[in-house]
Amino acid sequence: VLDGDGSLEVGRVAAIDEAEAGDLTFLANPKYASKLSGTRATAVIVHDDVSDAPCAMLRSPNPYLTFAESVAVLTPDPPPEPGISAQAAIDETAHIGADASVGAFVVVGAGTRVGARAVLAPHVVIGRGVTIGDDCVFHAHVSVRDGVAIGSRVVLQNGVVIGSDGFGFARRTDGSHQKIPQVGTVAVEDDVEVGAGSTVDRPAVGETRIGAGTKIDNLVQVGHGTRIGKRVLIAALSGIGGSTLIDDDVTLAGQVGVVGHLRIGRGVVAMAKSGITKDVAPGSRIAGFPARDVDEWLQGQALVRRLSDLGRLVADLTARLGALESRLK
Amino acid sequence: VLDGDGSLEVGRVAAIDEAEAGDLTFLANPKYASKLSGTRATAVIVHDDVSDAPCAMLRSPNPYLTFAESVAVLTPDPPPEPGISAQAAIDETAHIGADASVGAFVVVGAGTRVGARAVLAPHVVIGRGVTIGDDCVFHAHVSVRDGVAIGSRVVLQNGVVIGSDGFGFARRTDGSHQKIPQVGTVAVEDDVEVGAGSTVDRPAVGETRIGAGTKIDNLVQVGHGTRIGKRVLIAALSGIGGSTLIDDDVTLAGQVGVVGHLRIGRGVVAMAKSGITKDVAPGSRIAGFPARDVDEWLQGQALVRRLSDLGRLVADLTARLGALESRLK
Amino acid sequence: VLDGDGSLEVGRVAAIDEAEAGDLTFLANPKYASKLSGTRATAVIVHDDVSDAPCAMLRSPNPYLTFAESVAVLTPDPPPEPGISAQAAIDETAHIGADASVGAFVVVGAGTRVGARAVLAPHVVIGRGVTIGDDCVFHAHVSVRDGVAIGSRVVLQNGVVIGSDGFGFARRTDGSHQKIPQVGTVAVEDDVEVGAGSTVDRPAVGETRIGAGTKIDNLVQVGHGTRIGKRVLIAALSGIGGSTLIDDDVTLAGQVGVVGHLRIGRGVVAMAKSGITKDVAPGSRIAGFPARDVDEWLQGQALVRRLSDLGRLVADLTARLGALESRLK
Repeated sequence: VLDGDGSLEVGRVAAIDEAEAGDLTFLANPKYASKLSGTRATAVIVHDDVSDAPCAMLRSPNPYLTFAESVAVLTPDPPPEPGISAQAAIDETAHIGADASVGAFVVVGAGTRVGARAVLAPHVVIGRGVTIGDDCVFHAHVSVRDGVAIGSRVVLQNGVVIGSDGFGFARRTDGSHQKIPQVGTVAVEDDVEVGAGSTVDRPAVGETRIGAGTKIDNLVQVGHGTRIGKRVLIAALSGIGGSTLIDDDVTLAGQVGVVGHLRIGRGVVAMAKSGITKDVAPGSRIAGFPARDVDEWLQGQALVRRLSDLGRLVADLTARLGALESRLK
Repeated sequence: VLDGDGSLEVGRVAAIDEAEAGDLTFLANPKYASKLSGTRATAVIVHDDVSDAPCAMLRSPNPYLTFAESVAVLTPDPPPEPGISAQAAIDETAHIGADASVGAFVVVGAGTRVGARAVLAPHVVIGRGVTIGDDCVFHAHVSVRDGVAIGSRVVLQNGVVIGSDGFGFARRTDGSHQKIPQVGTVAVEDDVEVGAGSTVDRPAVGETRIGAGTKIDNLVQVGHGTRIGKRVLIAALSGIGGSTLIDDDVTLAGQVGVVGHLRIGRGVVAMAKSGITKDVAPGSRIAGFPARDVDEWLQGQALVRRLSDLGRLVADLTARLGALESRLK
Repeated sequence: VLDGDGSLEVGRVAAIDEAEAGDLTFLANPKYASKLSGTRATAVIVHDDVSDAPCAMLRSPNPYLTFAESVAVLTPDPPPEPGISAQAAIDETAHIGADASVGAFVVVGAGTRVGARAVLAPHVVIGRGVTIGDDCVFHAHVSVRDGVAIGSRVVLQNGVVIGSDGFGFARRTDGSHQKIPQVGTVAVEDDVEVGAGSTVDRPAVGETRIGAGTKIDNLVQVGHGTRIGKRVLIAALSGIGGSTLIDDDVTLAGQVGVVGHLRIGRGVVAMAKSGITKDVAPGSRIAGFPARDVDEWLQGQALVRRLSDLGRLVADLTARLGALESRLK
């Protein structure tokens, strides 16, 4: 709902404290509500329940989502021009879809199929026998190894690795390590985004899978044979051990670690730096290491902070009880 | 020892719950023993003490190792065809060994020597004066900087960096930081494997060293001047500070941190997320931050979980002692 | 101040326990003082208050800084020869400064300006509309995305990514995630160094900024819209959430995590593995998760280690009080 002059024109999006006349801004995080009165923006996207602003208001039940849609309209990111660079090395048995844009020094291996309107930035390396859906965007220095299957509308940020060998070794009698050949594969479903420098390993047998609509941040490690459900969010520097099952709609905050061979139930939320060592029931909110219920963990932390008080109390009780015992002896 | 029809043929390896007729599977982790009765595999590799399976059994004292060997036989990974891509940039003073496979856009610097049967995937960049042994496999986007020495049968997964500058700065009087030129080198011994995106820094003086047979997982940081022994295992997202000595046969689980200038004794095992701040005696099993004996740490964690009980007990004692004191006043 | 034979010649720098005749070494970390008497170096840089060594002494109030300067003199790193590789792909509208060295397979996009004496190692990819100052060194496989602004004397180690999309998604009513287009930019000021594999994201609006003289180690994640001040040090595997403000002269040790939307005051020092969840006052020294004053945290850790003693004491008090109560009943 627009509240204000409907004929106003905005040409740019900006942060609430950096916006100038002609800019559209937004207020999604209530933490910043105090900044609203001072904004110089021409219009602001606010939550339905905001009543007053120094500029036109565009009310929305989900200001962040409305903002996302507005940015896409105001600052469209023009796709690179279609065409295959003369400096790319595309195997003659590979198929590149219509209207794809393939940059300089891209390598595409034998038998690989890339869908329509793909953007392969310079220095993307795709192995042999890979399948890639339509409308994917792979940024510079992405590696996709042999045999991986990738859906449509998948975005891989710079330096992402899909299909590297899992960390699988068997110990020999002499203590040395025998590599387990990692001949399984990786499947990345539709609408997945993977952040810069993240790595997704392939397993010895079977597959590693990233479910549709899952978004992974930078420098995240996904172990071999792990299956991640749909619409999962994983923040930066988290690591998921091998053969773990992460159900739909799970959220892992930054620097979370998940041991291998676990099952994390649907909708679980793990706070930053959680270390998950056991299966987690659906809907749980967890924190700490070993991770447990977040309220229990917060209470435990508060009690640890009061440990010196407890120690003093016990010392006082000891003295008083001793005095009483002496008197009554 | 084969227990079953010796004329059975298997053509593929598969996970125990995904195997079909014609597949070979394995049971190494006792956690999955219950899956054995339901497998549809034609044959299963099991531990010597397993007595019954719904298919042929191949018994082994080390099923995981036998599985590793079976995979290598059943699904041999054909090496890329030997030859040097016309699109590679090999310095004329570099030497590439017999039967090597050098992909598109590979760069090899002046005076570098690469051993026989090396596989340098597309987009590998090797600096000047590097030596590389026989039978190495470097995946796409690996960087090896000037002067590094690498042994034989070394595997570097995608995006690995060997020989980047260590994080060495001296503070000037004005609070700014003067870079210490990192003119030392890195030595990687035989049979090492390094996971995708991991980085091994070079020091100001001397060398950083990774011992023979050591295996490093993805996104691991090895600091400048650190020496890692033989057959060490380091899991994902761990970081080792500079000038630290990690002895043979150490295991570091995921997201472990080791402060610089320490000595970690032979055979130490550090649990996930350990933060190691002091020297560790050989054979220790440690956990937590600051890391200490794993049993002590587990006991401490259990006591923290019971802190609210302890608090209630102390409150109860306080009340009872107060009542007694009043009565006796 | 030189103490010893002023005509001595040294030709190499070496670690104190590896130095041979003809080498210059240094003693900066008092932990290694015991190694001084055994060194075979020809000369050693020591702190002003060191009185005795088995070789010539070069005394300095800051031995590490003097060492840094000595290394630069003794082992000058010859810059690569100027020139642009015939195998680079430089857009015709890009400008490369005088005496720059541009390696094989480098990509520079339309409208980008690179300053004088830049070293762009092989496989560096620079987007469109980027500005880069003078005397920068970018190692192999660096990615700099469209529109980023980089100052002078900036060093980017291998595989660094500047300007990847921030992790910004708005939740739709059906639980799926709408990407917020990340159309802001990144500014990296003069004299910054970023370690191998680290990533700096661009925001939806405004900019991410790294202040002058800041040094970032390997595998560090800097979130979108975060502003880092001047002379900040950030060690390996740390992650900074989005929209956080890190003031000048802050030090974050390894594997530190900082939640988004915080302000970390000037000169704060955070110990390894700290998890910072609230604003931090200038000058604070913090540790733990949630991070708090380092002395409080150390005391808390010590108390946890004595929890079993406290438990035994409370059990003893309970028994004694019960006995007293029975007697007096």
